[in-house]
This record gives sequence, structure tokens and C-alpha cells, in this order.
Amino acid sequence: MPQNSSRAVGRHFLQIPGPTPLPDRVLRAMDTPIIDHRGPEFAKLAKRCLDGIKTIFKTSNPVIIYTATGTGAWEAALVNTLSAGDRVLMVETGQFATLWKVMAQKLGLRPEFISGDWRTGADAAKIEDYLRKEPIRKAIDAAGHPALLMVDTISSLASTDYRHDEWGVDVTIGGAQKGLMLPPGMSFNAISDKALAAAKSSKLPKSFWAWDEMLTMNKIGFFPYTPATQMLQGLAVSIEMLHEEGLDNVFARHARLAEATRRAVRAWGLEILCRDPKYYSPTVTAVLLPDGHDADAFRNLALDAFNISYGASFGPYAKRYFRIGHLGDVNDGWQVGALASTEMALGLAGIPHKKGGVQAAMDYIVAAHSGGARAAAE
Amino acid sequence: MPQNSSRAVGRHFLQIPGPTPLPDRVLRAMDTPIIDHRGPEFAKLAKRCLDGIKTIFKTSNPVIIYTATGTGAWEAALVNTLSAGDRVLMVETGQFATLWKVMAQKLGLRPEFISGDWRTGADAAKIEDYLRKEPIRKAIDAAGHPALLMVDTISSLASTDYRHDEWGVDVTIGGAQKGLMLPPGMSFNAISDKALAAAKSSKLPKSFWAWDEMLTMNKIGFFPYTPATQMLQGLAVSIEMLHEEGLDNVFARHARLAEATRRAVRAWGLEILCRDPKYYSPTVTAVLLPDGHDADAFRNLALDAFNISYGASFGPYAKRYFRIGHLGDVNDGWQVGALASTEMALGLAGIPHKKGGVQAAMDYIVAAHSGGARAAAE
Amino acid sequence: MPQNSSRAVGRHFLQIPGPTPLPDRVLRAMDTPIIDHRGPEFAKLAKRCLDGIKTIFKTSNPVIIYTATGTGAWEAALVNTLSAGDRVLMVETGQFATLWKVMAQKLGLRPEFISGDWRTGADAAKIEDYLRKEPIRKAIDAAGHPALLMVDTISSLASTDYRHDEWGVDVTIGGAQKGLMLPPGMSFNAISDKALAAAKSSKLPKSFWAWDEMLTMNKIGFFPYTPATQMLQGLAVSIEMLHEEGLDNVFARHARLAEATRRAVRAWGLEILCRDPKYYSPTVTAVLLPDGHDADAFRNLALDAFNISYGASFGPYAKRYFRIGHLGDVNDGWQVGALASTEMALGLAGIPHKKGGVQAAMDYIVAAHSGGARAAAE
Amino acid sequence: MPQNSSRAVGRHFLQIPGPTPLPDRVLRAMDTPIIDHRGPEFAKLAKRCLDGIKTIFKTSNPVIIYTATGTGAWEAALVNTLSAGDRVLMVETGQFATLWKVMAQKLGLRPEFISGDWRTGADAAKIEDYLRKEPIRKAIDAAGHPALLMVDTISSLASTDYRHDEWGVDVTIGGAQKGLMLPPGMSFNAISDKALAAAKSSKLPKSFWAWDEMLTMNKIGFFPYTPATQMLQGLAVSIEMLHEEGLDNVFARHARLAEATRRAVRAWGLEILCRDPKYYSPTVTAVLLPDGHDADAFRNLALDAFNISYGASFGPYAKRYFRIGHLGDVNDGWQVGALASTEMALGLAGIPHKKGGVQAAMDYIVAAHSGGARAAAE
Repeated sequence: MPQNSSRAVGRHFLQIPGPTPLPDRVLRAMDTPIIDHRGPEFAKLAKRCLDGIKTIFKTSNPVIIYTATGTGAWEAALVNTLSAGDRVLMVETGQFATLWKVMAQKLGLRPEFISGDWRTGADAAKIEDYLRKEPIRKAIDAAGHPALLMVDTISSLASTDYRHDEWGVDVTIGGAQKGLMLPPGMSFNAISDKALAAAKSSKLPKSFWAWDEMLTMNKIGFFPYTPATQMLQGLAVSIEMLHEEGLDNVFARHARLAEATRRAVRAWGLEILCRDPKYYSPTVTAVLLPDGHDADAFRNLALDAFNISYGASFGPYAKRYFRIGHLGDVNDGWQVGALASTEMALGLAGIPHKKGGVQAAMDYIVAAHSGGARAAAE
Repeated sequence: MPQNSSRAVGRHFLQIPGPTPLPDRVLRAMDTPIIDHRGPEFAKLAKRCLDGIKTIFKTSNPVIIYTATGTGAWEAALVNTLSAGDRVLMVETGQFATLWKVMAQKLGLRPEFISGDWRTGADAAKIEDYLRKEPIRKAIDAAGHPALLMVDTISSLASTDYRHDEWGVDVTIGGAQKGLMLPPGMSFNAISDKALAAAKSSKLPKSFWAWDEMLTMNKIGFFPYTPATQMLQGLAVSIEMLHEEGLDNVFARHARLAEATRRAVRAWGLEILCRDPKYYSPTVTAVLLPDGHDADAFRNLALDAFNISYGASFGPYAKRYFRIGHLGDVNDGWQVGALASTEMALGLAGIPHKKGGVQAAMDYIVAAHSGGARAAAE
Repeated sequence: MPQNSSRAVGRHFLQIPGPTPLPDRVLRAMDTPIIDHRGPEFAKLAKRCLDGIKTIFKTSNPVIIYTATGTGAWEAALVNTLSAGDRVLMVETGQFATLWKVMAQKLGLRPEFISGDWRTGADAAKIEDYLRKEPIRKAIDAAGHPALLMVDTISSLASTDYRHDEWGVDVTIGGAQKGLMLPPGMSFNAISDKALAAAKSSKLPKSFWAWDEMLTMNKIGFFPYTPATQMLQGLAVSIEMLHEEGLDNVFARHARLAEATRRAVRAWGLEILCRDPKYYSPTVTAVLLPDGHDADAFRNLALDAFNISYGASFGPYAKRYFRIGHLGDVNDGWQVGALASTEMALGLAGIPHKKGGVQAAMDYIVAAHSGGARAAAE
Repeated sequence: MPQNSSRAVGRHFLQIPGPTPLPDRVLRAMDTPIIDHRGPEFAKLAKRCLDGIKTIFKTSNPVIIYTATGTGAWEAALVNTLSAGDRVLMVETGQFATLWKVMAQKLGLRPEFISGDWRTGADAAKIEDYLRKEPIRKAIDAAGHPALLMVDTISSLASTDYRHDEWGVDVTIGGAQKGLMLPPGMSFNAISDKALAAAKSSKLPKSFWAWDEMLTMNKIGFFPYTPATQMLQGLAVSIEMLHEEGLDNVFARHARLAEATRRAVRAWGLEILCRDPKYYSPTVTAVLLPDGHDADAFRNLALDAFNISYGASFGPYAKRYFRIGHLGDVNDGWQVGALASTEMALGLAGIPHKKGGVQAAMDYIVAAHSGGARAAAE
């Protein structure tokens, strides 16, 4: 690192698990004079967004677009469907699951929290056990409505396959700043008919998050209050870009970069936080450092020396791991460049590791492309 | 209008009362690669914003920055300070006052609504009368806390003088897309010590809007959940621009353009919706059309012929008036260009009016500048 | 003007006769990652530009695109067709005609200069007289080739009708920063078959400006040396915009704004520099100030007070006039805003004039629109 | 590569040896409303550029800024200093040396061309031999002025150390689209006093390229004809960025990335076109493919599969090599990402090579950073 330089050189490797690197096309679409949010041009823009976002969630129902980050959409999912004292079954998979539990408490709900060690996913069997327990089942039956299934796709939407309708989800929460390649400031609720029905009897107070007014106004291409016009300009373009690439190609690319990243980590001889391959994330990989090495210090060194940012660590393993994002508008060369920066930073930091991580990633990518080429030729 | 043109020519006259025309400098500041919202560069950006926004509200207390439009900040003001069943005294000054009343009801509060005809402002004497009435006073006394004063400055902040601390306001609600010259998607709560104290006993459920976590995280330059990074990039620059111009100059400019606009309206022989000069807005002027003329049709004609947008009409006078904005990063020539487009559109639409509105506006502006020059010379 | 403001407020009225206000769409098209100027994406871009620019000059022959401002394209026209000592007949219509004469001299040519007073256009009869004079005619005949007709359209291209082929022009010189709504940095030579033939015998040394290599490389979508990629990105979009509006609509708009401007000047009681309406420019109007008033001082005052720039004065009338541009991506409201700024600045400067210029401009514009509507209805 | 994708994913690896990847800061500085090129704001901008560019060439004399790409600046160097029939000694180092020879011929000069095989640099001893030969020396003496030394730094300026004054160069030719990180469209002549003196007796016709008028107008902050305003906006910022990083840091970075690239090539077992390490370029490395492999086919495959562009091949080795750029605003991770894309593309193309190139590059970079850290600590 030059001694007296006050400039971070070249393009920043933003490898946090979202917000993701913004495509120039999205940024430029947002860098446009603002238009009247009650005029005819806006109505066209809103329609592109409201129609387009359904194809991303794979739903034929309306999707609510909020001017708020993902946390807001989570709150919206809860206040639109539940009443004070209602029970919510949640699974402790990590930091955000924990935050959602606290949110549910603050809103006057009663979360049941299936505890976990932050290193695995939501176990369907455990969830089934819980649901069979007397009190929850009973309450559900008494209320005459079955439990609603809510899924947080903030970190995975538009990066891995997701099908709101086909999978019978009631409320899907999504955010803009991940696979949708937008800045933070927009989030979504995809809604089933069952959720819409539940909203009618829900008693939690709500106004900003209320679905009903949104649905009414959206029908004519407008919003009940001033929407984030520039975010909508970006959204229309990002949806267009995803379809130009082809959603299945988008998913295959994320899967490829995720596996390449994990192979690099293993080749370095470092441990992946997630214990079970079944629960591997297609968008982020958390890497445990050997005992005695501070992950925050490593992140700082990598930022200074190689202009790269990683996701921070939280909870029981705070400061022991860093997270490498592999999502958004990222291609093979870029991701390998990020892995190379990481391998070089590990070297510079004197953190014990084996070389060869980048090589393992490249080998996997070449094989994946060759396979694709072969499959296409057959 | 050319018959077969599919392009709106030249710069659009966005004369709605917000969002306002975005300065290029703000747009370009937002058109920048996204940064890690937990990194050192972000902390510097957050500090610029959190410190800077205080100078706009003229408060030494912290100001909460929400990723949401103004409606969200209104909800925040209520849920942070009140409990179910609390009474809220509101004054029917127009469309938004009416919306806030509905919001309060939805949140489980009990609004007292001082009725009005949408053509005047909040009458201090009437408010005093209400507050003296037995039940409210009694409830307030019983609760042991005096009423909180909340002010919605969404349409006037950074356009006319406002002093949160000096004027003893408890919660001030502000938005980004007006005098702050930003896109919609950000709003504010400036808070008094009394409001902070009230927040401790408030019982309305809240999570996304909760002040406490925001205040805690903001202290170290971060946010409890992903903030709208690009909006903050824009905010830092817009605050800088306001101070470069000088806040008092900003206010004088808005006052000048507002008066120039009203003089044009009067010269046309048309009626200003607001009956009492005491309540004239420094940022928008609503113009009543003669009976039998549809304001929406006029707005459409003006948009087609002169590429200009006006604010729509609402409520009891819907379709009878249009609103001319005069706020944001707008100079004399621009505002007169907008008034000229209006006078020409009135002509083209065949709406009865007198010529000379633009001349009246120009005469006023020249006099205002000459006065300033004279004052400076003395 | 506020006393201590360090910021020019609002949008600058760039009323110089080019460069013209750049449309956001053009600027954003240029604000894009650079591409390989020898790759397939570039070839597509080059084709859009090379094909498109022909429709602007109305020629079926190739048009040469130079990375240079208009002065360069003028030099190119001369060095590609002429040899040392060749005679060039030029007409002194103003500043640029005078510059071209000096250029011809520097390049070793012998310009015949039909003198003028900078206040009228090129008189066809005078030109005919000159061409009939013995020595020129003789030289032309001796050389076996008739005189080539070269036209400088830098200030008028894409603003008023121009037909390279139909009008039998041999070399047309054009520039990017006027009606094409681009930044300066690109210029053009449209070429007749006769000019191409003349190029074969031309002996002036040339390399950068040489047509032959350009024509060869352009055929396959490339350039003999690195072209200004971003300018081409902008050019492709500006041509698209002109056709979306419709070239005839573009011309009608310029004619309307030009006449509106002249009516304003006359209503002010000021004199238009150009003496003969036959030679009025569709893109700029020079305004003489009353004796004793310094046009440069007026321009400075207007810039400070109203954020407006005018074209400077040159030659025999230097400091006695300023020039108001009315070209590029400018609509009615904008131009009237510029005229209003001018009328207000005249007032502030204490320059004797009558009010009513803006009113006259508006009256004309309304009539022009009404006429258009009437014509369309018939 | 997905079969039906119509979108190039992620950031393009533009590894041609210029234009180089444009920093966002430069692009945004150019994405700004155009200003009056004869107004006070422009004069400030011009001063920043005219002063700043001297620090890049390391000269205290003025530097001429042309609105033209490098080829234009080469022509300018010749026409300003020479007369028809003058001799020019040139060395055949590669494609551009050959182009300059042709240019000299077209301009009526008589180039002496020291032949070469495009795989080595300019040999000082051979140049000395030539200069000692009778006819040249004699002509030089007869003319009473010694040979002028002209250096083309287009590909190396602002990437490796260069000192116009200290090294006694008479005319230095530079371009914008390489180390200066700008788009193509601007080029430079740095000039010695001897060159200025030679310009007085030079007889080649010139107008656009003439130094004298440029020097006169630049003194007061303006240009003799409309300059490329937006390019100047970019230039002011790019100079600022180079100094923020520190020129020596810029040079060290380029040297590091160049050596890392060469180590990768050697590890792959491929041959570097340049035979002699003494002549290695700090900005580009040409890589010979094994016999029987078409470099153009390889470049196409790499572009499709990995969104990367390389420099094309020319001359005697056309289609046998491709060129990897390592210049401009490029950091370690980016360059390694480009090398990784190359190694993966070699694999996908079935071109015989050894793995380990990327590893070799990383090892070198880590060592270079460690050395720097050590050196700083001592």
C-alpha cells in the first residue's frame, strides 16, 4: 500500500452480501430528472414495475412495493396479518432471524423461537414438531384460520429460484439491494389470497404499511403517498436486465459463483460457518478464521490493501468470521478477482492458510462452463 | 404541438409542489458506486448527514432519518409518543391534514379535528379554544404530561424559516423531496427532550419507526438496519448546497418567487385558493379556474403543449384548481418561464383571463432585486 | 442577488449560440463505461452513427466524423480538396467567415473575400459577379474542374432544413455542439462525388484529416485511429431524439423560437444586428445595445443576477451587442424564461428599453400553436 | 455462457491498452451541464487543466491541449516544427511507429526508418549511428538547427515516470485515454523552447494545429476555437486523482501489475512478444499463442465467456498474439481477475498452457506489498 495515498484505487470490491454492486445501467436509469408522480409517464413506469415484480416473485397476485428497506417489509408482513398476542413461530438461523424475533415482540406478538447455533438452516422436522404441540395448534384452530407461511427472501430473491405461488407461501418479504441490484430503499410483500383474507381480521394498528390502500391505488398505476420515483426507475430496468439474462441463467450463475467461492475457502483450509451443505447460501459464504485471528482486523487490512469490503460478523461468532458475498451483477472474473484479493490479504495478514483457493475456484468455473457448452452441444 | 412527435422537448417544467426539480449535483452525488454501509467511508457520510440535518431543522437535538417518504415520518411521530386511545388535536387545513387524521384513527388514536374549508391555515385562537375544553385538558393533566406540539414541515422545510428548538416544537416531521431538493424516499423526525421523555411511556407498538435504536446506532455513525445509502449521498450534498447559498438567501428566494407567482395569478384575474394572505404558502400557490373550466383538462393541455406539470387538486375543490409549485432549486428565470408557460396555456385553452401576469411577476422580481441592491449599497 | 451566496441557483440559462444545453438523455448515454473500439459492440454503435448522420445532412453519400470541433472540419474540407495556391471565394458575413479566411491563408490557399459589414448574409448576386471575373474562371477552367461549393452548417445543422444532396453542395461542414445537442468535440464533412474526385488531385499535405482512410475503415464499422467513443454514444442518441421529434418539427420549433425572440427584441425597442430579415438566423439573434452601453458589462450583470449566459460580441461591433441563442433542446417555456431573464436584466442594468418583449414573444408562440392546431384540425 | 442470454453480465474487463476503464468520478465530472466556454467558470476550469497537465508532463513550459486523439497530436508535433522535405528519423518499434512513418510521408516529410521486428524497443546506439551519417548531419547543420527530439508517450504517460524538461525532450506527444483515465478525444503537445523556436521557421501549412494561437489564447484561460468542455471537466478531475494517489504510487502500481502479468504469462508457458526485458512495457503485455492457435478466435471466445476485451494484433504477427493491458485506474484484485479470466479462457479454448499463472501473479503482488510495508517500517 502506498504510504501517502489518499485515494482508493480502481473499482471497489463490494463483497458484502448486499447492497450489491450497482450496474451502471441501473444507476443511470435513476440519474434522471424526476417526473410527476401523478402524471401519465409515471403511470407507465409504475405499471412496468408492478407487472414486472410479479415475474420475479413468480406470483400472479399483486406485490406491494414499499419505500423502505427490508426491515420495513418484515414489519408490514406482520402488522397486516396479525393481532396483538398472536403467536409467531420463528427459527433461529442467524442474525436476521433474531432481529425479526425482537421485532415481533415489539409489535406485541408472541414469537416461539426454535433455537439454533447460527450455523445451519431451518429444519423442517423441528418446525413440524413445534406446530404439532398443543397450544399453538389449538390457538390456530380456535382462530379458525391455519398458520400463515411467511418467507424472508431478502438475501436470495433474484439470485436463486423462488416461486411464491407454486410453493404456497402466504407472505414473501423481499428487498431491492440484493439480487435486484438496486440501492437500498425499497422492499416488497408478495401476498397470497389467504394472507389477504387474514388482513381483513388483523387488528394490529397500521397505516403506512397497510396493504388495502396500496392495492387500491396500484390498480390505477399510482401510490397512496409519494413513492420513491427514482427507485422505481431503477427497478424497471433491473427487472428488464434479469429477463435479458434469463432468470435460470441468473440462478445458474449464482450457484456457480457460490460453489467456486466455497471451493476456494476449503482449499485455503479454512472452515465455512454453515455446517451442512444442504443449507449453503447461494449468495454469501461466511468464513471462520483460525482461533486467535480477529476477523474485523482482517477486514480492515483487506480494505486498506486491496480495496475490498466483506460482510461483518454478528452474534455468538462475532469477530471470528467474515462473509464473502457472491450475488448481484457479478461475473466470473470479478468473483475470482475478489477471491484473489482475499487470498492475497490472507497472505499479507499472516493468517495461516494454504494457497490454491483461487486455482480451485477457477478450475470449478472452467468445468462448469465446459459442462454447459457440452450440454448445449448434445 | 407537432402532430407526430413522440418526444417531450427540452427540460420539463416540474411545477408540482414536490418532488422538486433535482439539481444535477444531487443526482450525480447519488449516481455513485454503492459503499459498505458498515464501513469507515459510510460513517463519514452518515456524520455529514446527521450533523448537517440539524442545521436545517435548527435544533441541537438529534434528528431521525427514515428510509420512507413523509407519510412514514408522520406515522413515526405518532407511534413513538402516543398510546392507544390518546387524543390528537388536528386542524383541517387541506388534503394532508385530512390524511393525517385518517392515519391517527387507523393507529388507534382519537383525533379531534378542527374543521376548515381547505382555504385557510391553522387558527391559533381556535386551537387554544379546543385545548381549554374540559375533557382534553383533563386527560392531559391526568396523564401528567402536557400536550406535545407536532409540526408537519414537509412542504416548507428548507424553503422558509423554521426553528425547531427556538419555537418549542416537540416533533417536527420533514421530507426530502421538497426544499431539500432530493428524490422522495427519505423523511425526518426532529425531536424535543419532552418528546423523548414521552417516547418512554408510549405504548403504541413500533419497531421500524422506533426512535431508541436509531438514536443508539446513529451515535456511532450507523443505522439499525440498511439505510438508503444513495439518498444519504444526495442529502450530504443538498445540505452543502443550501449552506453555500445561505439559508436566509434560500428563504428570500422562495418568498420572492411565491409573491411573483401570486402577482401573476392576480394579474390574470384568477382567484388564489388560499383566502387569507396570512396563510399564503411560500412554496405553492393553488389557482382556481373560472366556473365551468376543468383544471385536470387544463393540466393535460399544458403538459402536451408546454411540457409543464402542476400539482393536482383534491377534496371539496377537486378539478376546480391547479397548483403551481415555486420551491426547490428554482431561479427567477425558471419560475417566470413556468408562469409564461401557464399564461400561454391559458391562452391556448381558451380560459378567460387577462394578459400581463408574467409582466407583473417580472416587475416584482426586478423591484425585489433592485431593493436588495439598494439595501446592500446603503 | 443575495450578498454572500457562493452558489449559482437553479438551472443555468445557457443562451450562447452553441454549445447548447445538453439533454440529460445525451449526457447519460455518454456516462457509460467505455467499450473496446475494435469490438463487436462498437461496430454496432458506429453503424448507428454513420447511417444516422446521413439522415441529418440528407445525403446518401458517406459523412466523415472527426474527433475535433468545427474548426477542424473546416480545415479538413480545404485540405482534402485543394492544393497550394488554389483560390477560395469567401463572403465576409461575420466572425467565423473571417476566421475561415485566415485559415485558408495559413494553409497556403488564396482566398478572395467578398467584404461585408457583419450585418447581412451571403449575397448570391455578388458571388455570381465574382465567379464571372476573369482570373478565377480561367483558373477553374484551366484546372478542368468547376468550383466546389462548400457550406458551413455548424450553427444551423439540425435546426433548420438542410439538404446536402438536393442542393448540390460539395462539402458540408457540420459540428456536434449546436442542433445536434452534443458537447463540443466532434465535427463532420458531408461529401459529394465531385468533392471525392477533387480529393484525388488535391495536393495539400494531410493525414489526420484525410478522407480516404476514414472512408475505407468506416465501411467495416471502425475508424483509422481511436475515435471519441463517448461522443459517438451521445451522437447515436441525439440522432434518435431528433427523429423522435421529427426533423420538420425540430425546424418549426427553431423557427418559432427565433421569431419569438426577435419580436421580444423589437418590443424592447432594441435593434437586431442583422439588417435584412432574409438573412435572419434560425438559431441566434444578436441585439445591439443603445450607444454608451457596454454589452460585456450587461452580460456580466445578467450572469450574476439571473444565471444566464449570452454569446459574446466580435469584430467591428465588439462590446456593442450580445447574442441570444435559440437552438438545441429548448422548448417554449425555457426560451421565454430566457427572454424574461433578459428583460429583467435590462431593467436591473438601467438600459433604456420598453417593457412588453416577453409578452410579444408569448403572443407569437400562442398564435403559432393555435395555427398549428387549426391547420391540423382542417 | 448461458445459451439464450442477451446481456453481458457484470463489469466488462476492458483490458485493451487504452482507452482504459473510466473511473466513475471522471465520468460523473463529465456528466454535467455544459458551461459557457467564454465565461468566468470556464476560465477557472481551463486554468486547472492547463496548470495541472504541466505536472503530469513534468514541464514548466506550456502544454497544448488538442480536441483530437493522439494521432492528431502527432500531426501537430510535425506540422508545427518542420517544413516540406525535412528528414525525420523514426524507429520501427511496432504498429504505431509504422503509422507515424506513413503520416510523415503524407505530410511531405522524408522519414528515415530504422527497421525493427516489432519485438524490441528503440536502440539508442542505432539511432546514434544514423544521426552520424553524412546527409542527415549535413542537412541539420546547413539548417543551422540541431535535430529535435520528439517522444510519443501516448501509451505510457501517467503510468510510468516521464520528465519532459529534465530529459531534454523537444516535443512530447500525449493522449487522454490511457494513464489519464479519460475517454478518447483529447491529446497533448508538451514543447521545449527549442521546439518553439523551430516553430517560427517551420513552413508546413497549419491552422487547426498551430501552436501560436493556442499559446496566446491559453494565457487568458481560453481557446482559439470551441474546446471540448466536458473533456476538460474530466481532465481536471483525473489530474486531481493522480495527485491524490501520488504520481510515484501510480508508477509503482503500474510496474507491479505489469510484472505480475508477465509472471502469469511465463507461468502459463506462453511467450511474451517483447524479446528484451529492457523494453518491457509498463502498460501492456503482448502474449504469443502457440503455433496453430488464432488469437482473434481466442479473443472472441474470452469476450463471450468472460466479458473481457484484449488488444488486437497487428503487422507481421497479426492473429498470433493478443495484448493484455495493465494501465489506468486498475487495482490488484481487478488485474488478477483479468488474468484469471484469461487463464480460464485459455482452458475453455483448449489452448495448451500450464496452470499457475494467476498464482504466480498473486505471489508477486503479495511480496511487493510486503516489501513495501517492510521498507516503510525500516
